[in-house]
Amino acid sequence: MTNDLQVCLSPSLISLFEVEDAIVVIIDIFRATSSICYGIENGAEAIIPVAEVEECIAYQEKYPDYLLAAERNGEVVSGFDFGNSPFSYTKEKVAGKTVVLTTTNGTHALHLSRKAKKVVIGSFLNLTAVCNWLKTQNDNILLVCAGWKNNFNLEDTMFAGAVVDQLKGVGFILDDAAIAADDLYSIAKNDLPGYLKKTSHSERLKKLGIEADIAFCLQVNIATAIPVLEGEKLVKLV
Amino acid sequence: MTNDLQVCLSPSLISLFEVEDAIVVIIDIFRATSSICYGIENGAEAIIPVAEVEECIAYQEKYPDYLLAAERNGEVVSGFDFGNSPFSYTKEKVAGKTVVLTTTNGTHALHLSRKAKKVVIGSFLNLTAVCNWLKTQNDNILLVCAGWKNNFNLEDTMFAGAVVDQLKGVGFILDDAAIAADDLYSIAKNDLPGYLKKTSHSERLKKLGIEADIAFCLQVNIATAIPVLEGEKLVKLV
Repeated sequence: MTNDLQVCLSPSLISLFEVEDAIVVIIDIFRATSSICYGIENGAEAIIPVAEVEECIAYQEKYPDYLLAAERNGEVVSGFDFGNSPFSYTKEKVAGKTVVLTTTNGTHALHLSRKAKKVVIGSFLNLTAVCNWLKTQNDNILLVCAGWKNNFNLEDTMFAGAVVDQLKGVGFILDDAAIAADDLYSIAKNDLPGYLKKTSHSERLKKLGIEADIAFCLQVNIATAIPVLEGEKLVKLV
Repeated sequence: MTNDLQVCLSPSLISLFEVEDAIVVIIDIFRATSSICYGIENGAEAIIPVAEVEECIAYQEKYPDYLLAAERNGEVVSGFDFGNSPFSYTKEKVAGKTVVLTTTNGTHALHLSRKAKKVVIGSFLNLTAVCNWLKTQNDNILLVCAGWKNNFNLEDTMFAGAVVDQLKGVGFILDDAAIAADDLYSIAKNDLPGYLKKTSHSERLKKLGIEADIAFCLQVNIATAIPVLEGEKLVKLV
């Protein structure tokens, strides 16, 4: 097997990779892809990620039964069902429903990856499920870190490293970013929350008063569902 | 002191940083910035980095006494004085001379950083000299990794980490990339050549038969000169 396992550290770098020739994993740990994984795990029929609150509203007008999730500066936007906290994506709230989720970084990364062979969603919540599935695919893999406004961030890179850690033994060719992510993960894995406390984004999120969300997003393997992109919707991979 | 110490992991990300408001260190370890540091250390009057062999030739027509350095696929371009190997930049060859150096990645990074308060050149050869100078500047610092065709690479990131390692104790605010570079350096620092053997670029350079260049470029603190950009020329910082 000589498939590639590569890490795109920022959406701004994606043109350097052969997206069409790979399975892409989208990573936006704080909090979009964590919330998406939790929502699909809890039976959401579909989650539609959009970049702008206005797009959310357009969906509502067309499909009044869709749930809308949008935040601005850490507050639920007035008139919306809930925000981006993973705690909003419980079984009680999302089972059987379609949710339109506003997320800038995650949506941007998804949009740029549309031409991939397949686009799936990763988070620490479904880490091993994603890795086990990837191992069965015999294909090139590109891990796309959504980052923060196109900037490199540690939490997304750390998750990429966790994936590399599980896959590196089965014969992929790693690029330099995959090696770096794997090595960073090896430093942090025994205390992810402690390690990530020193990051810029963690500081930003703390100011928003969502430390509980951060702790939630760093739980490992509490979910087995893998969200996959079908058209504009993320649904459960079967 | 609340200055920023940031790392730009690829020239493609430079628009995310306030270049105008920082001192920039350009990093292209294999081999451009290593050769430049060695050349300036050995008394080159100036080194002019250009992107294309054609630009090199244009200089020669205007200034017949300039030395020209250019490679294509690891071979000295016919009619040129020498290639990009640091071994070409000895005292005997470059003292008192102006050298026009063709380097794609390094020139690209330099060009994008022109608006910085100051642009200096870093390599393992002059690591501590650069760090000691940076400590006296009381300014924001941006470490720009030239990378490989805009892609992230480990050797440039590793040098960025070596700089962060020396500066982090004196009160800078680190971004996530600086934290990552520092942590990667902490893994590799006791055996840089061994660590970098696993990188993609090292593999590429080995195919070109320039392992001796690689070993040379990983020597630490054999130089004290700091090349600084003045107009189009790199000269010794005084």
